[in-house]
Amino acid sequence: MTVGISSPKREETTPRARRDGRERLIDGARKLLAERGYAGMELRDVAERGRAPRGSIYHHFPGGKAELAVAATEEEGERVRLALRESMQKHGVRATLKRFGDLFRRRAAERPELIGCPVAAAALARPEDPALAAAATAAFVAWEREIALALEREGVDADRARGFAGLVVASIEGALLRARAAGDDAPLDIAVEGLEAALDQLLADPA
Amino acid sequence: MTVGISSPKREETTPRARRDGRERLIDGARKLLAERGYAGMELRDVAERGRAPRGSIYHHFPGGKAELAVAATEEEGERVRLALRESMQKHGVRATLKRFGDLFRRRAAERPELIGCPVAAAALARPEDPALAAAATAAFVAWEREIALALEREGVDADRARGFAGLVVASIEGALLRARAAGDDAPLDIAVEGLEAALDQLLADPA
Repeated sequence: MTVGISSPKREETTPRARRDGRERLIDGARKLLAERGYAGMELRDVAERGRAPRGSIYHHFPGGKAELAVAATEEEGERVRLALRESMQKHGVRATLKRFGDLFRRRAAERPELIGCPVAAAALARPEDPALAAAATAAFVAWEREIALALEREGVDADRARGFAGLVVASIEGALLRARAAGDDAPLDIAVEGLEAALDQLLADPA
Repeated sequence: MTVGISSPKREETTPRARRDGRERLIDGARKLLAERGYAGMELRDVAERGRAPRGSIYHHFPGGKAELAVAATEEEGERVRLALRESMQKHGVRATLKRFGDLFRRRAAERPELIGCPVAAAALARPEDPALAAAATAAFVAWEREIALALEREGVDADRARGFAGLVVASIEGALLRARAAGDDAPLDIAVEGLEAALDQLLADPA
């Protein structure tokens, strides 16, 4: 779920130029993972998409493609987690479902052939690259935890909150896959509407 | 969703040996698509997994890898559609969700690193191979149609049936992705339980 928000704050432990080069590479890798998957993520294209010199990749990521993909997955996981948290705190869970649906719809309208989630791409890297799949799992778990916490704040019992949060992440990821194959955002609308209906029932009978 | 059921009946238009060779290749391709994705599906491995001579691939599939992947996606789509239809007719929608959940759980317990769906892999082939992504979409639509029809038979209003069917397919596909990354079937349980709860609400208030 590449979400168009600003990067989370980083600790200022590295000089700006170095940090910027690293972040540009991570940004290019996030986009390419979403668009082409891990197998199709070529380092020369990452440098180009991130507007970074190709020679800088091994400077910032001595472990090469595998290390860069993990960093991109962690970055995407953290961005989406923060965006989810902020939106749920301000607008509640139900409105956040709709806001994420709208976000995907706008993006799908622009470039329907490029709908994708870098974390989903990382998830498929198992068994070849278990560290990358583990980074994907950590991102999914972090999103589910934020959603479950927000549901609990809205009065939903902890077990049911956790179950519904798992359903949200699974169905949005599946709908992105379905939308990408179709080149059409309708599957996202259907998933969001189905989740809204299920959430209404959950909030009407939360314990 | 590689489902361990027998192949759907084919019209007897080709001699048995030729048909068997073709089907063995399709079977190998279904497994490899699920395990490694389209980019990672190597023709030499397809022949090996399908126990078919490598030289037979271009005999049965003059279009090579792209044509074989489309055939594998169509075969998987049809198998799952028939399995869904049969199970929903016999056991109803709710019990079918549980039966599919159990099936995935058994498979995940055997080889957790190989959880995957060939149709999901085909879905990700867009934009490089739009014909393959279209075959994936056709399979998803066929599954959704069967589920929606079964819900209508159980008294659910057509619009809500269609919406819930879309949610089922998206959330199971997303949960498979999530389970693959984790090497663990818990995300599938969570998705199935979430769908069961949502379905109970839908059946309690179907129109």
